[in-house]
Amino acid sequence: MLIKPGELLAAIESPADLRKLDQKQLVQLSSELRQFVIDNVSVYGGHFGASLGVIELTVALHYAFNTPYDQLVWDVGHQAYGHKILTGRRDSFHTNRKYGGLSGFPKRKESPYDTFGVGHSSTSISAALGMAMASQYKGEADRQHIAVIGDGAMTGGMAFEAMNHAGVSNSNLLIVLNDNCMSIDPNVGALKDYLTDITTSHTYNKAKEEVWKLLGKFSKFGTSAQEVVSKVENSIKSFLLQHSNMFESLNLRYFGPVDGHDVDHLVHIFKDMRNIPGPKILHCITTKGKGFALAEQDQTKWHAPGVFDKITGEIHKTVYDKPQPPKFQDVFGHTLVELAEQNPKIMGITPAMPSGSSLNIMMKAMPERAFDVGIAEQHAVTFSAGLATQGLVPFCNIYSTFMQRAYDQVVHDVCIQNLHVVFCLDRAGFAGADGPTHHGAYDIAYMRSIPNIVVASPMDEAELRNMMYSAQLPREGAYSIRYPRGQGVMPNWKTPMEKIEDGIGRLVQEGEEVAILTLGPIGNYVAEASQLLAAEGLQPAHYDMRFAKPLDSALLHKIFKKFNKVVTVEDGCLMGGFGSAVLEWMADQGYSATVKRLGIPDRIVEHGEQLELHRECGFDPEGIASAVRELAAVANTKTTSIV
Amino acid sequence: MLIKPGELLAAIESPADLRKLDQKQLVQLSSELRQFVIDNVSVYGGHFGASLGVIELTVALHYAFNTPYDQLVWDVGHQAYGHKILTGRRDSFHTNRKYGGLSGFPKRKESPYDTFGVGHSSTSISAALGMAMASQYKGEADRQHIAVIGDGAMTGGMAFEAMNHAGVSNSNLLIVLNDNCMSIDPNVGALKDYLTDITTSHTYNKAKEEVWKLLGKFSKFGTSAQEVVSKVENSIKSFLLQHSNMFESLNLRYFGPVDGHDVDHLVHIFKDMRNIPGPKILHCITTKGKGFALAEQDQTKWHAPGVFDKITGEIHKTVYDKPQPPKFQDVFGHTLVELAEQNPKIMGITPAMPSGSSLNIMMKAMPERAFDVGIAEQHAVTFSAGLATQGLVPFCNIYSTFMQRAYDQVVHDVCIQNLHVVFCLDRAGFAGADGPTHHGAYDIAYMRSIPNIVVASPMDEAELRNMMYSAQLPREGAYSIRYPRGQGVMPNWKTPMEKIEDGIGRLVQEGEEVAILTLGPIGNYVAEASQLLAAEGLQPAHYDMRFAKPLDSALLHKIFKKFNKVVTVEDGCLMGGFGSAVLEWMADQGYSATVKRLGIPDRIVEHGEQLELHRECGFDPEGIASAVRELAAVANTKTTSIV
Repeated sequence: MLIKPGELLAAIESPADLRKLDQKQLVQLSSELRQFVIDNVSVYGGHFGASLGVIELTVALHYAFNTPYDQLVWDVGHQAYGHKILTGRRDSFHTNRKYGGLSGFPKRKESPYDTFGVGHSSTSISAALGMAMASQYKGEADRQHIAVIGDGAMTGGMAFEAMNHAGVSNSNLLIVLNDNCMSIDPNVGALKDYLTDITTSHTYNKAKEEVWKLLGKFSKFGTSAQEVVSKVENSIKSFLLQHSNMFESLNLRYFGPVDGHDVDHLVHIFKDMRNIPGPKILHCITTKGKGFALAEQDQTKWHAPGVFDKITGEIHKTVYDKPQPPKFQDVFGHTLVELAEQNPKIMGITPAMPSGSSLNIMMKAMPERAFDVGIAEQHAVTFSAGLATQGLVPFCNIYSTFMQRAYDQVVHDVCIQNLHVVFCLDRAGFAGADGPTHHGAYDIAYMRSIPNIVVASPMDEAELRNMMYSAQLPREGAYSIRYPRGQGVMPNWKTPMEKIEDGIGRLVQEGEEVAILTLGPIGNYVAEASQLLAAEGLQPAHYDMRFAKPLDSALLHKIFKKFNKVVTVEDGCLMGGFGSAVLEWMADQGYSATVKRLGIPDRIVEHGEQLELHRECGFDPEGIASAVRELAAVANTKTTSIV
Repeated sequence: MLIKPGELLAAIESPADLRKLDQKQLVQLSSELRQFVIDNVSVYGGHFGASLGVIELTVALHYAFNTPYDQLVWDVGHQAYGHKILTGRRDSFHTNRKYGGLSGFPKRKESPYDTFGVGHSSTSISAALGMAMASQYKGEADRQHIAVIGDGAMTGGMAFEAMNHAGVSNSNLLIVLNDNCMSIDPNVGALKDYLTDITTSHTYNKAKEEVWKLLGKFSKFGTSAQEVVSKVENSIKSFLLQHSNMFESLNLRYFGPVDGHDVDHLVHIFKDMRNIPGPKILHCITTKGKGFALAEQDQTKWHAPGVFDKITGEIHKTVYDKPQPPKFQDVFGHTLVELAEQNPKIMGITPAMPSGSSLNIMMKAMPERAFDVGIAEQHAVTFSAGLATQGLVPFCNIYSTFMQRAYDQVVHDVCIQNLHVVFCLDRAGFAGADGPTHHGAYDIAYMRSIPNIVVASPMDEAELRNMMYSAQLPREGAYSIRYPRGQGVMPNWKTPMEKIEDGIGRLVQEGEEVAILTLGPIGNYVAEASQLLAAEGLQPAHYDMRFAKPLDSALLHKIFKKFNKVVTVEDGCLMGGFGSAVLEWMADQGYSATVKRLGIPDRIVEHGEQLELHRECGFDPEGIASAVRELAAVANTKTTSIV
């Protein structure tokens, strides 16, 4: 279903059309663009509040700058729906985030207006600075480079690294700080407080003028200059806050704060800024969810609400006739509180994902023991290491894809020191609609390479609870547990917890000829695959290995003594993953068998529903069944052991 | 040879002894400690300038604080020699950085005074904050937590992430900013300029008082208040720079700058600061190399000068009677300039390692095309990605161990977008005396898991040049080249460059029965291993595979059709590394053979000379020979192919 845009928006096929409008029409266009986003997202889902918050910014940027010659980089990019709609993707926008459709994030392959692929936070300043320095080198003195970055993303360390470099460059770089006090959850940290300070001092906007006025006024009455200065001290401070502020400290010219919803004013400012050379920052105040009252009120809920009624604001929920399994996230959240009530050493840490990870359950239940440290994965891990040195047991919950940001800290600050930190890797495997920037594809490979860490993944909710229980018991070294986005399989998931010894797998189903070794919830596909195969007279054995590291050596000996045809299945990269760990074990133990590894292939897999992507990569139930069939058809060779 | 300490230092077995001294004796103690460091490092080698620069800080911290109850974290840690000497390791200090001896960095296993293992930059604030929050949770209200961090390390993003969190905590955290304007090379970036600004404005130390004085003076002569304010504007600015500065913006109370070599003053300040609650920062100005004139003058050269004459300052160099092979670093540096002269698209990027990586050769030859971006690996990679979007060809040189910091950026900003960035991974494999924090152990595994990247390693200088040449030719996607610290094997290394097709290996030596597959310079051990084996009648074949990704499929088919006994050798982790890639290929192609993988085992390997560590891990020449012998002794089984 194609949703129709308003009259002005309907005529815009590219920013060139936008720039033909009279500046006075931009308010109307902004309104139409906002409505188009509401109309679409309410029907097709997707990120919501962030794009509504930057409608005017989006219109003003494309109006004032000569995109795509002038280069615009959206940080994170889930706020770029307006940008996509104005840059030739209006009529395909209903395919947003669907399998085969538009990406939910800017993407270079999709459009020349998408100058940089984004998804993770805090990359925009580095990328735009690279573009700006390239322009400088090429002698394109008129070319502008704009990074739009939220105040949440500004807490990510690499944004600071980039500003430190930008400040000594002579680049045509404009940083637009989109300050809405939010990440997905409310933004935290000292920087947020500081930005609020600047904003508040905006009341003293023309402080300098006031100082002069006051001085003139007082001197008439013969008040001494000392008293004058004392009285205007606050005004001076406010003035200097703006002219000697943090960004100015880094040699970025600071402008603002300005109202990010005043499209006319924004256009004026941007046009002026084109003529100001060197790196600079414009501080815009916006409201996440602007123009949709409910979204303004509960910004976390309306970050990505799913499909909803745009009139009543009712969010559609599928109604089930029987109890559904919980999300793994909620099992994590509730189980952590349950464990923390028993073990006073347990602490919880999240980098800016309290609601996404469900750590907010612990933050509410025991606020002194759960920390949201902001978009700061590196700090989150080393902060956890610091806690662990004091005998506490931190549960550091980071999405698999974001843990890539803290890989060095896992190696250097946790594992080299053999510290007892528990990592919970959420969104492991295919993330779904968020696509390749968010897939948790590499963690099994990059985690199992490191010494002094257990790499575990539960097949179901009970195993997740048991692994969390086992992980918090006294031990040396780290423990990581990966689990995917979304639902598990156990409606009655509050099982009593019991210890799983490190590296101990289990037999799920006896079988003949072919053994299937799985890691994690992807193992639940095997039952369905087995049903398909049963009709053909095949009954593979199924082992839930639970651990990529250490491997269950005793169980593997049993398996490879019985089977010489093995399928491994993982929701992770094939290069260096769980299947490779099994191959290493075989080589070290002298087994030869025919092994078919299923998992994420060595290419970038785009977005889609998790099942769609599993199917595409051949490890959905049908894919697993096919692999078993293929192996069963291979002539038998004898298993050999050389040791 | 045990070097004798001076009289005061000789009596100090721990900081408790130090605290028994009269405060007036600390100047003398500092002098003895400095001399002890000079005496030792001149004879045994090691880091030099950094420790000399913090002698007084070290003495003052242990004197004023109750270590180890009060917790002291040294950022990076190569400046902690004085700390080690004062905390019970004086008499073992001559073993510093030697195989089996003391670590060159603080290390938890070594001493309770080493509260956190360090080596990489910018971790100290996160770790100390974790300790401080643990103390708060435990109710240890009197316990102090101190992070000592250099101005170079302060540019690393995670330091900013940590300050953003610290500023909203109520922790007993003291950050000591050791400002010497240096990393290993002179520090760069806007933050450095800012710190210089603050320091310069120290001239206006008592700016507020001056303001008042001036106001009084001018008003006597009837000067209008407006003129007064205009004239004292700079003074006010200086004053407010100190009271509304960047650190205050993050809600850290800022003190300083102070002279970091005035031990008496430092003790007073630290004692005062114990009573100031909440997070705070003390800005200390120090001189790297303090007290050794030559080291003060050329701080980069004297960062870690090797063995030298402490009187004349002559640095001892081994004299060779024939031309020596160059360092891989210098081959990189000169070759990059050679290529850049031909290809105007080439740019060079280093995060704060111009001299270590030899990118300084390009920085000197073509300053507009080579960037030192500060200690900022994440930014370095995404900045490179930004350059690549504009058709430039960035050579981003990062030590293997530090590339762990930018893993996400390699995945997210380069490889998902299939951008043509060339990564040169210096110090790959065992780093040597720097030890486990600096070993480049994991890069083969973590790089080859990512799509759209070539993972190469040259066996010698000519191959490095050829790979660099090949990497800069037009292509889609990234190219990474790993090479170790230190010398190659070719005295005449300026070979003409030629293209190596991606993934094409080569036969080095024909042989029988056993094939040795190597990646990188470790392959040069095979000749020596072969000599050992020749005496026993064994002649293994040797293949220099050159690439961990893509693998040379055609060559591997030849190899596995001829050989069913294979040894793989790599200077990298066995878990998921090059050998595993070969196993994956075998499994996918249906080969079975007996494979013995040599490389870095799944444990933390300590420091020592590279050869010592290769030997310990069984991949020195003798280790390789042993592996061949072992395989040769195995009964032959037939190579099978199922495809």
